[in-house]
Amino acid sequence: MIRLSLIGIGTGNPEHLTLQAIRVLQEADRVLIPEKGRGKEDLADLRRAICADHAPDVPLAVFEMPRRDPAITDYAERVEAWHDAIARLWQEALAPLGQEGHAALLVWGDPSLYDSTLRIAGRVARDLPMWVEVVPGITAIQAMTAAHAIPLNTLGGTVAILPARRLRDHGWPEGAETIVVMLDEGTSFETLPDDTQVWWTAYAGMAEEISIAGRLKDALPRIRAARVEARAAHGWIMDTTLLRRGDAGA
Amino acid sequence: MIRLSLIGIGTGNPEHLTLQAIRVLQEADRVLIPEKGRGKEDLADLRRAICADHAPDVPLAVFEMPRRDPAITDYAERVEAWHDAIARLWQEALAPLGQEGHAALLVWGDPSLYDSTLRIAGRVARDLPMWVEVVPGITAIQAMTAAHAIPLNTLGGTVAILPARRLRDHGWPEGAETIVVMLDEGTSFETLPDDTQVWWTAYAGMAEEISIAGRLKDALPRIRAARVEARAAHGWIMDTTLLRRGDAGA
Ligand SMILES: C[S@@+](CC[C@H](N)C(=O)[O-])C[C@H]1O[C@@H](n2cnc3c(N)ncnc32)[C@H](O)[C@@H]1O
Ligand SMILES: C[S@@+](CC[C@H](N)C(=O)[O-])C[C@H]1O[C@@H](n2cnc3c(N)ncnc32)[C@H](O)[C@@H]1O
Repeated sequence: MIRLSLIGIGTGNPEHLTLQAIRVLQEADRVLIPEKGRGKEDLADLRRAICADHAPDVPLAVFEMPRRDPAITDYAERVEAWHDAIARLWQEALAPLGQEGHAALLVWGDPSLYDSTLRIAGRVARDLPMWVEVVPGITAIQAMTAAHAIPLNTLGGTVAILPARRLRDHGWPEGAETIVVMLDEGTSFETLPDDTQVWWTAYAGMAEEISIAGRLKDALPRIRAARVEARAAHGWIMDTTLLRRGDAGA
Repeated sequence: MIRLSLIGIGTGNPEHLTLQAIRVLQEADRVLIPEKGRGKEDLADLRRAICADHAPDVPLAVFEMPRRDPAITDYAERVEAWHDAIARLWQEALAPLGQEGHAALLVWGDPSLYDSTLRIAGRVARDLPMWVEVVPGITAIQAMTAAHAIPLNTLGGTVAILPARRLRDHGWPEGAETIVVMLDEGTSFETLPDDTQVWWTAYAGMAEEISIAGRLKDALPRIRAARVEARAAHGWIMDTTLLRRGDAGA
């Protein structure tokens, strides 16, 4: 059986690496490095730098990531086809290992959180006898709460984590004092009540880290301006927002 | 100003430590080690072992944690009084640092998640000029999803994290395909529909790790038996449960 280790590397801070991540990376026979293409060089570069620093002798299998096919109009079908295409590339990259090598893949944040790597691994495992191992990593959520030095939850409270699309389509999830919004291409939370408490962090854990906090009314214009400026400066932005109901306490 | 670093250490696996955690620990002038008392020696021992392995020259300030006062019947008041008592002990332990030393505290998992350390630090910071820094750590949630090699969320879905008490009192939070139950003293999820999908892990990340998964109907008796047996063997148990609606997909 091939051993495939999905290694969480944290959110762009080379010091987010755990001792387990480093050990498992060093044990690998091969590291798969998918390149995401223009504008995302920083991300592939971080993976290369981690390998160079901690496992310089492990060979890299670099391949270019396919793009989603815009000709497929249905969202779920488009993602399906894309995952299939990625799975084929993984299989090619794994082929040189034969029946029982050990491959590693470095995953942004933690492999469990809004990431398709585990799903693609499941697809590959249908065709290739393979054992999938996950090494946990620091998520954008922890990096964001650390940036603000705040708790994720209120005392005994519920926290909902959701993509921006869900917040826009369905509103604030019932029963949660706190929500964490990810995968936001704008400021999806802008229509929430003015007294909502907001903690926003972009590039959490990285040298470029920016954090803004306050009541939504005051924070929103500052966040909007910071997003525009940061995107212009870096070419890309990743941000995570924690929101608490105005009356939620601490 | 005193610098107080709250360092997430992960959930009992010494390899959960990040490079940042190790560096900040090594930079400290003093590490506060609260002892929780009988039955929890393992936990204080892990903290001592981490210090011995990574920062043998940093002095330890060991103190016994106060207990909650059962004479205070109101829950919120009892917790308040307890946090005050802990804050006083921290102040004593910080006193030798004078105006500008650097103290560190090792926090189980990540300091943001169902942990009172940040709240107590806030209390101490009212009396002592102090800068509180958080170093993120692997949470029980990541350790549990890694144990099962599963995603936390369904595709584009919402995840709610809640204490067992909330699940018992208010039921499944509306709008979440996935829930994660923590702080459970039993199997609070036992009244959910039979076809709910369950992933349960105790001692996630540790040598004693046990995981059970399946439909609730089949998994529940196995989880109950495993809890009784594990508690008898170790004297304590910490478990985290991920549940998905039977119809939630993947
Ligand atoms: C595809 S998801 C991957 C999440 C990742 N697996 C994790 O554990 O954090 C990408 C989203 O994560 C968040 N994110 C990732 N890195 C971030 C960072 N450095 N700062 C803030 N948010 C980040 C953003 O919400 C972004 O849209
Ligand atoms: C007081 S909370 C602290 C959580 C911690 N700060 C974290 O980030 O994981 C304790 C709860 O965390 C969960 N937990 C902590 N360690 C665990 C472990 N090793 N395995 C499974 N669950 C764990 C259990 O639900 C437990 O009741």
